Amino acid sequence: MSISLENKMVNRQAPWFYSSTLSESVSEVILTDDEARHVVAARRLDVGDAVCITNGQGLVACGVIDSVSNRPPRVSITLSERQLLPPGPRIHLASALPKGDRQKTMLDMATQAGLGTFTPLSCERSVASPGKNAGDRWRRVVIESSKQCRRAWLPEIRSELTLTDFLSTVSSTAEVFVASAEGVAPGTLPYQRGDHECVVLVGPEGGFSDIELLAIQKSGCSEIRLAPNVLRTETAAVLAVAVLNQLASAE
Amino acid sequence: MSISLENKMVNRQAPWFYSSTLSESVSEVILTDDEARHVVAARRLDVGDAVCITNGQGLVACGVIDSVSNRPPRVSITLSERQLLPPGPRIHLASALPKGDRQKTMLDMATQAGLGTFTPLSCERSVASPGKNAGDRWRRVVIESSKQCRRAWLPEIRSELTLTDFLSTVSSTAEVFVASAEGVAPGTLPYQRGDHECVVLVGPEGGFSDIELLAIQKSGCSEIRLAPNVLRTETAAVLAVAVLNQLASAE
Repeated sequence: MSISLENKMVNRQAPWFYSSTLSESVSEVILTDDEARHVVAARRLDVGDAVCITNGQGLVACGVIDSVSNRPPRVSITLSERQLLPPGPRIHLASALPKGDRQKTMLDMATQAGLGTFTPLSCERSVASPGKNAGDRWRRVVIESSKQCRRAWLPEIRSELTLTDFLSTVSSTAEVFVASAEGVAPGTLPYQRGDHECVVLVGPEGGFSDIELLAIQKSGCSEIRLAPNVLRTETAAVLAVAVLNQLASAE
Repeated sequence: MSISLENKMVNRQAPWFYSSTLSESVSEVILTDDEARHVVAARRLDVGDAVCITNGQGLVACGVIDSVSNRPPRVSITLSERQLLPPGPRIHLASALPKGDRQKTMLDMATQAGLGTFTPLSCERSVASPGKNAGDRWRRVVIESSKQCRRAWLPEIRSELTLTDFLSTVSSTAEVFVASAEGVAPGTLPYQRGDHECVVLVGPEGGFSDIELLAIQKSGCSEIRLAPNVLRTETAAVLAVAVLNQLASAE
């Protein structure tokens, strides 16, 4: 078995699945529970079908299903070639939560758009909080999205923080933005490409409070305008990730 | 009553509602049906409350509710100042349809991101077609989104076309893009700002067919890469609108 760093060595067209047990040394991966059900029930794959497995930490392997059993669901995959993919730009979204299903939409689309890290922000005007088991639910969402869009790096999901607590954790080398209808077009900013983290703050529907805005101003954020209109929280979050990814990866 | 072209003359912070009967000459607008229900049931507004009304064609007026009745729902608004706002960049999204609720998500978020015109594309690998009354449903979606994000221009929704029929309708002065994982970062393109239309094609989940790709190539499209991953149709559509809006409105 070979490990390749070349970009085209592993054929990544086959359906993707996730396993935390994949490493550079194993020659077989066993999928159980949700992942096994995804193979069998949702994708209707069977013995002999080609699949890709990622560990969500950059490693992706090609393999073939060599056995399937149903109760309990269990799929065994013999691996062949594998590849370690580099992470994308370090985009950290710190956003207030929208209500209900919009949380899932936000994380799903932001993952596709290139989300690196997500911190839910507790703001004075927040309309929703993470709720019970939110971390597990969100992790399932980003795993599903990552498989669907063939990402070898899972976004990292952190615990909720207040805006001021969050700002105190931001590295001094990070470039910090805040989504604002009064901001400038991101393309007009003197963006410094590099390996540093790129943080973007998104407020709740009612906006940040005056005290929060003061903390944001003090932290030296750049205000960016993502669209010509007032945006819902989840739309601002998704567009922020996409636009910063464009800035960070432009040549 | 005065008509203003100044950007800050009318206080547009009050909740927005839509009425096709608003014109520069009327001094009163009557809302009925969905719009009246939105005022009374969803926003819980009453006599004396300030509102904004748009006709979806650039005109927005400030007013005060002067009567409310419930059966049938009917809200009467006396208008004061009004303002004619310029349309945004002419972004035309021509996209295959995702399935089910994702159609609504796509149109809702694309409207917030600055959608100008939407044409559903019928592609060889399409997984969904507009279905019965889609035009009416989608119009309600873009009206709701426009109100929510305070857009004075409603996106225009056109009838479904095949890709080749659509390409034959595109003006020779339009700049045409296609969303593609093999494309370049949009910011690296020699984009010509101006009043011309900006068209972006988005294919179905399975991609455009070879015949469709040939037609796209012949039409001289630029391939743009919207994110570092494979994107779902609705995510590609929303990001395309946002990214082209950034390009078109950058100074």
